[in-house]
Amino acid sequence: MKRLFDFYTVDLSPDENALVILDQTRLPGETVYLTLQDEESIWDAIWSLKVRGAPAIGVAAGYGIYVLAQKYETGSKEAFLKEVRRIRDYLASSRPTAVNLFWALDRMLNTAESAARELPGDGPETVEKIKGRMKEEARRIHREDEATCEAIGRHCLSLLEPGMGILTHCNAGALATAGIGTALAPLYLGNEEGYGFHVYADETRPLLQGARLTAWELHRAGIDVTLICDNMAASVMKSGKIRAVITGADRIAANGDSANKIGTSGVAVLAKEFGIPMYINAPLSTVDFACATGADIKIEERPGEEIFRKWYERPMAPEDIKTYNPAFDVTDAKYITAIITEKGVARPPFTESLQKMRENK
Amino acid sequence: MKRLFDFYTVDLSPDENALVILDQTRLPGETVYLTLQDEESIWDAIWSLKVRGAPAIGVAAGYGIYVLAQKYETGSKEAFLKEVRRIRDYLASSRPTAVNLFWALDRMLNTAESAARELPGDGPETVEKIKGRMKEEARRIHREDEATCEAIGRHCLSLLEPGMGILTHCNAGALATAGIGTALAPLYLGNEEGYGFHVYADETRPLLQGARLTAWELHRAGIDVTLICDNMAASVMKSGKIRAVITGADRIAANGDSANKIGTSGVAVLAKEFGIPMYINAPLSTVDFACATGADIKIEERPGEEIFRKWYERPMAPEDIKTYNPAFDVTDAKYITAIITEKGVARPPFTESLQKMRENK
Repeated sequence: MKRLFDFYTVDLSPDENALVILDQTRLPGETVYLTLQDEESIWDAIWSLKVRGAPAIGVAAGYGIYVLAQKYETGSKEAFLKEVRRIRDYLASSRPTAVNLFWALDRMLNTAESAARELPGDGPETVEKIKGRMKEEARRIHREDEATCEAIGRHCLSLLEPGMGILTHCNAGALATAGIGTALAPLYLGNEEGYGFHVYADETRPLLQGARLTAWELHRAGIDVTLICDNMAASVMKSGKIRAVITGADRIAANGDSANKIGTSGVAVLAKEFGIPMYINAPLSTVDFACATGADIKIEERPGEEIFRKWYERPMAPEDIKTYNPAFDVTDAKYITAIITEKGVARPPFTESLQKMRENK
Repeated sequence: MKRLFDFYTVDLSPDENALVILDQTRLPGETVYLTLQDEESIWDAIWSLKVRGAPAIGVAAGYGIYVLAQKYETGSKEAFLKEVRRIRDYLASSRPTAVNLFWALDRMLNTAESAARELPGDGPETVEKIKGRMKEEARRIHREDEATCEAIGRHCLSLLEPGMGILTHCNAGALATAGIGTALAPLYLGNEEGYGFHVYADETRPLLQGARLTAWELHRAGIDVTLICDNMAASVMKSGKIRAVITGADRIAANGDSANKIGTSGVAVLAKEFGIPMYINAPLSTVDFACATGADIKIEERPGEEIFRKWYERPMAPEDIKTYNPAFDVTDAKYITAIITEKGVARPPFTESLQKMRENK
C-alpha cells in the first residue's frame, strides 16, 4: 500500500531492532521519523500522541512490545514470559483509554505464551524461537491493518464516482493507521485510478487534525484538497460542490449510532439537509455490539484551554471563561447512509445489517 | 444604556475634542481606550478594525468628522464646507465596503451644508454655529443607535423566557454598536430583569469574534456564558440546552434571506433540525429591499492564511494548501423563525412582513 505515499506512519526498522514512527506532533511543518529502541521512548510516543489513531497505535504497540522483548537475553522461557508481561503492563499504562493498545499488547503476549507452551524444551534457542513468533505476529497485525484499510477503501470506492467533491472531518487517514486509512482509503484508491476527487477537509477544531494531518497527507499524495473551517461546511454543501461525506468512527453502537471526533454529528445533519450521502468508514472491530445505542457512549470532556489557549500566541478569550469541550459526539444512525467495514457496506437498519456482517466473518 | 456595562465602544471625549474608541484588536487581553484627535489616527482606527461593526463604525464616523471639522478655524462658511467635504472623502476611503460609514459621513456633511444654507451671514460665529449643529447630529446618530439597539432588544426579549439556553454566533453585541448590541441586546435587558440566561458563544472561526469579543463582553457584564468551538453547536443543541439561536445580520434580502458571518447558515440548519427557533436581530436599515433574494448577495472571500496561519505560532497546514475562506454566508429565509428590528418582529413570509414594517416606519 505504501506505493501511494512517500511517508509511512509506523513500521519495524530495517534491522528489526527498533520501532519507527512518524512524529505527528511535528506535522505539518516537519517530517521527522523517530527510531525508538527503549521502553521510555516507546511509552512516551504513545502517551504524547506522536503516534495516534486506534489502528496505528495497535501496530505500534505490537512492534513496540516485540522490540523491547527481543532485547532480553535469557535461557529461560519462564523468565522471558515474565519480562514480556512486565513490558505489556508498562506500555498499557501509556494511554489507558485506547482499546486497540490493550488488544494488540494482549495479542502479542498470548502469542508468546502459546509459543512457550508449544515449543519443546527450554534454553536460549527456544527463547529465540518465541521471539521469532512474536515478530511474525507483530508483522501480521500490521499486514491485517493494511488489508482492512484496503478492503474498506474498495467497498467505499464502489459507492463513489469520478470527479466527486467529498467532505471529510478530522483525520481517519494513513496517519491514523498503518495502511491507507479508513475514511481516506477510497480517496487514495480512487486517485490511483484517476478518479480526480475534489476533497474538502474541515480543519477540525480545537485540535486541528483536519488541517495538520488530513490536509497534509492528501496534499502530499497529490490529491486535490481544499482546507476549510468547520463552520464553512454548510456553505460548501449548499454550493453543490459536495456529493459525499466520509468520516471514520471511534466507536459504533449496535444500532449504528457512531461516536467520532466532535463536529461529525453536525456535518451529518447538514449532509442530510442538503441531500448528500453520509458514509462512516471503520473496521468491523469498531462496532461495539454490547453497546445498544449511542446513548450508552460516554463522551470525554477535555480542558477548555484547548479552545482558547492551545496553539495561540496569546489567550483568545478571557482566561477565566467557562467552556464546554467534548472530544467526540454521537451521530444518530438516522443521519448515516451506510457504514463501510472491511466486510462490506452496511445499510439501515444497522441493527440487522451490522449483526449480519458480524456473523459472516 | 451604559448602566449595563463598565466599558463603552465609541464616544465623544468629555472635552468634546476627540473621538474615543475601545481598541478591539487588543481584546480580550487588554482594555485600552484610544483618544483620537488627528485624521490619520481616526482613519487608521476604522481601517485596522480597532472599531468594527456597522453601527459602531457609523457612530465613530459621525464623531470623527465632527472632531476633525471643529479644529478648522475660518470665518468663511464656504471654506469650512470645503474642509468638511475633504475630511468626508478622506475618512470614506478607510473602509470602502462599509455602507454605514458612507451613510454617517454623508449625513454629517448634509447637516453642515443645510446649516450653512439656513444660517444667515458669514464669519467665525456662523461657522461655530455650523460646528454646533454637526456636534448635535453626531450625538443624534449615537442616541439613535442606542435607541435602535434597545428597541431590538425589547422586541426580541418578548420572545424569550427566563432561564433559557441561547446560542449566538460571531459578535453582534455592544462592541459592534454604540449601544447594547443587536443579537445580544435582549440578553443584556433580560439579565437586568433577572432572566438568568445561559448563553453559548460559538468561537466563530477563523477570526474568533465569538471568543475574543462576544465571550468577553457577556462575561464582563456578568452573564453566564460558555465558549464552544463552532463544531460543538450540534452537540449542545442535541443535549436540549439551547432553546433559541440569536444572531445579527450584515445584509437582509427582501425575502428574508440573511447574510451574516460565515457559519450562521449551518447553525440555522441545525436549529431547524433540533426544533429550536432561529432569530435574526438587526436594524431595519440592514434590509436591502433592492435585493430580492440571497442569491443576489455577493460573498467576500478572504485570504486562506486567516485559516492556517493567523493567530498561530506556526502554520497549521502545508503552506501551499488550497483554501476556501468565505467571510459570510446566506441563511435561507426558510430556516429563520423571525427577523427582529427596532420596529418589531417580522415573521414569514418575510417579503410581506418586512415590506409592511418598512411602510410603517
